[in-house]
Amino acid sequence: MDSRTAEVGSLDAISAPGRVADPAEGITHEELALAARNHGLPLETLRYDVTPPGLHYLLIHYDIPLADAHTWTLTVRGRVRTPLTLDLATLRSLPPATHRVTMECAGNGRAQLTPRPVSQPWLVEAVGTADWTGVPLRTLLAEAGTEPDAVEAVFTGADHGVERGVEQDYARSLPLADATAADPEVLVAYEMNGAPLPPQHGHPVRLVVPGWYGMAHVKWLRDITLTDTPFTGFQQTVAYRYRQSPDDPGTPVTRIAPRALMVPPGFPDFMSRTRVVRPGPLRLEGRAWSGRAPVAQVEFSTDDGHSWQEAELAPPNAHTWSWRHWQASWTATPGTHVLTTRVTDAAGNTQPLDQPWNRGGFGNNLVQRVRVFCPQEHEAQGHQDVQGSRDH
Amino acid sequence: MDSRTAEVGSLDAISAPGRVADPAEGITHEELALAARNHGLPLETLRYDVTPPGLHYLLIHYDIPLADAHTWTLTVRGRVRTPLTLDLATLRSLPPATHRVTMECAGNGRAQLTPRPVSQPWLVEAVGTADWTGVPLRTLLAEAGTEPDAVEAVFTGADHGVERGVEQDYARSLPLADATAADPEVLVAYEMNGAPLPPQHGHPVRLVVPGWYGMAHVKWLRDITLTDTPFTGFQQTVAYRYRQSPDDPGTPVTRIAPRALMVPPGFPDFMSRTRVVRPGPLRLEGRAWSGRAPVAQVEFSTDDGHSWQEAELAPPNAHTWSWRHWQASWTATPGTHVLTTRVTDAAGNTQPLDQPWNRGGFGNNLVQRVRVFCPQEHEAQGHQDVQGSRDH
Repeated sequence: MDSRTAEVGSLDAISAPGRVADPAEGITHEELALAARNHGLPLETLRYDVTPPGLHYLLIHYDIPLADAHTWTLTVRGRVRTPLTLDLATLRSLPPATHRVTMECAGNGRAQLTPRPVSQPWLVEAVGTADWTGVPLRTLLAEAGTEPDAVEAVFTGADHGVERGVEQDYARSLPLADATAADPEVLVAYEMNGAPLPPQHGHPVRLVVPGWYGMAHVKWLRDITLTDTPFTGFQQTVAYRYRQSPDDPGTPVTRIAPRALMVPPGFPDFMSRTRVVRPGPLRLEGRAWSGRAPVAQVEFSTDDGHSWQEAELAPPNAHTWSWRHWQASWTATPGTHVLTTRVTDAAGNTQPLDQPWNRGGFGNNLVQRVRVFCPQEHEAQGHQDVQGSRDH
Repeated sequence: MDSRTAEVGSLDAISAPGRVADPAEGITHEELALAARNHGLPLETLRYDVTPPGLHYLLIHYDIPLADAHTWTLTVRGRVRTPLTLDLATLRSLPPATHRVTMECAGNGRAQLTPRPVSQPWLVEAVGTADWTGVPLRTLLAEAGTEPDAVEAVFTGADHGVERGVEQDYARSLPLADATAADPEVLVAYEMNGAPLPPQHGHPVRLVVPGWYGMAHVKWLRDITLTDTPFTGFQQTVAYRYRQSPDDPGTPVTRIAPRALMVPPGFPDFMSRTRVVRPGPLRLEGRAWSGRAPVAQVEFSTDDGHSWQEAELAPPNAHTWSWRHWQASWTATPGTHVLTTRVTDAAGNTQPLDQPWNRGGFGNNLVQRVRVFCPQEHEAQGHQDVQGSRDH
């Protein structure tokens, strides 16, 4: 019987436990359905300091809710002295802050792992950078007044679904120290790149937690509850843990591990995405970031990581939690080359040359490898003129 | 040896011929790489008349070019009396037109085919609707003056790459009768939804061909050449043909076949995307379109296509080449249901219940099937409160 028409008796039957793929198993129909609706950053658009609208990565656990900004309210409650109910006009009347933030999905790199955890199958493109404007969370919490026994803030969004058998509104927490820190400063954001949040990025209100993986940036934010015990919700204690086996309690996924990416040079083959470059000098460029400390050094290699050279970093700027541009020169010679790059942050974190495997496929910051084919200079390529004839 | 490090000797080695997948073959790494960079429409956003920015489908053959609107020029040449070189200011000074257009990729539905043609693996989400503003192409061609022997207009974009061994700038043609028609009216568009085109939609200038599949809407448009013989370029005579075998010359892919889609009701399981609905009455809704004739009727079925009922169509409007909203009522009962819908256009074209297979996977407008699970009313679902405890 077709799986789409099979009778199911309970939520568990449509909501299977996590698993890793068999060694010979291709990407499944379910993984493809996630890849088709969630959006990656086309890597050539790493050229932009701020990702143009519509190109920032998107990962939506359930559905994008229909939200009306005019009637939306955000509640602040739990272990506070004065519970608050805030509409958008009130949020906009408070002193705003804007932060440029590079956001990355914790599952970025998952589909490159062996064995492959079965979930949203990102290669390396689940990243983007935006200017987010909103009210600092610490402003709201100061207004509500935190009780001395509060230890965490729990953030609940309006997106509703089932995951691994658990029906839920998407919810995540932060320790109070992170929620109220001055740097990185958490925002209750209502603008992206100077415009109201689009539906898919949390319209009308979302959390932005600079330096943390995307799962912390709760979209369609409806409630902030301060608690006197740590949150044990699904997204905190079941999902988003670094685990080696199903019964490993694991450690929480928090800040973004360092990663450098390169704009793939030259031009692509449509199907294989292999790059073609002409022989001669060319510029390599890309972006590098870390949510753990500022970027300190970017290196590149044109021999698949056997030897490394230092790339030129753009000058430091005020955007600590945004990516930094890097560039380097390379003279392409005929043949096939594997280009790669890696970043090291100021705390000494760098990228591994061997995959950092875990069962959820989180934080895989294995170096990017870009295969480039450089034909002989005299080797004319098949190409067409406007009449479509092939010219050799 | 890893395929990424294998030496290659020629473009053909990185640019394999088209193929269909083996019966047991999952989605490949190459197909996944395309799915990760190209964007589908999350189906819940079928609720919007005009697709919000960033949610419209995207299919980019090669790379998004870096384009400077200030120096961009569009040439009109070939079999014309007066060749033109137009900058953006000149285009904007001509009388504009705006059309609301539903655009769909010709490969939409490809990944549901058996056997599966290996290419961009769309399920059903390669669609979107936008208001496009620009200069009617017929205005520009009238200004240039077409020679009596002109038969086609060839449109060339700035995106450059290799496909099936052929290096090319993306180029497509239209018969002169289609290029100069009053309805559908082809636009040389410079605005999408009232704003300059974003990079990924053809900034600063693209073609918009209402009613035609996406391959005709050449992005990053640089040149229009009128020819006295039909264009034989790659995208016209090799790609985008309905073929049954590799040596079948096939027929050209042109206008959009009718399709209806439904907003998947209820809420999803994260991984399987199976829908969960509560027992009781609910509203089904969606969109329907055809590029061949106006929408005439939409039907829906809640028993996997065994029986059909007519859905309620929104009133006709001036947007002939945009999708139409439909809705219907359904009372969900406990169990598993397969919902489906189909549209028939005014020319009598409708959607098949069996796949219309071809080797490129084009125009697969097989009906959408949405599996819905409705639990017993008394069957409490596992869910969490803000403290994360499961409540049964």
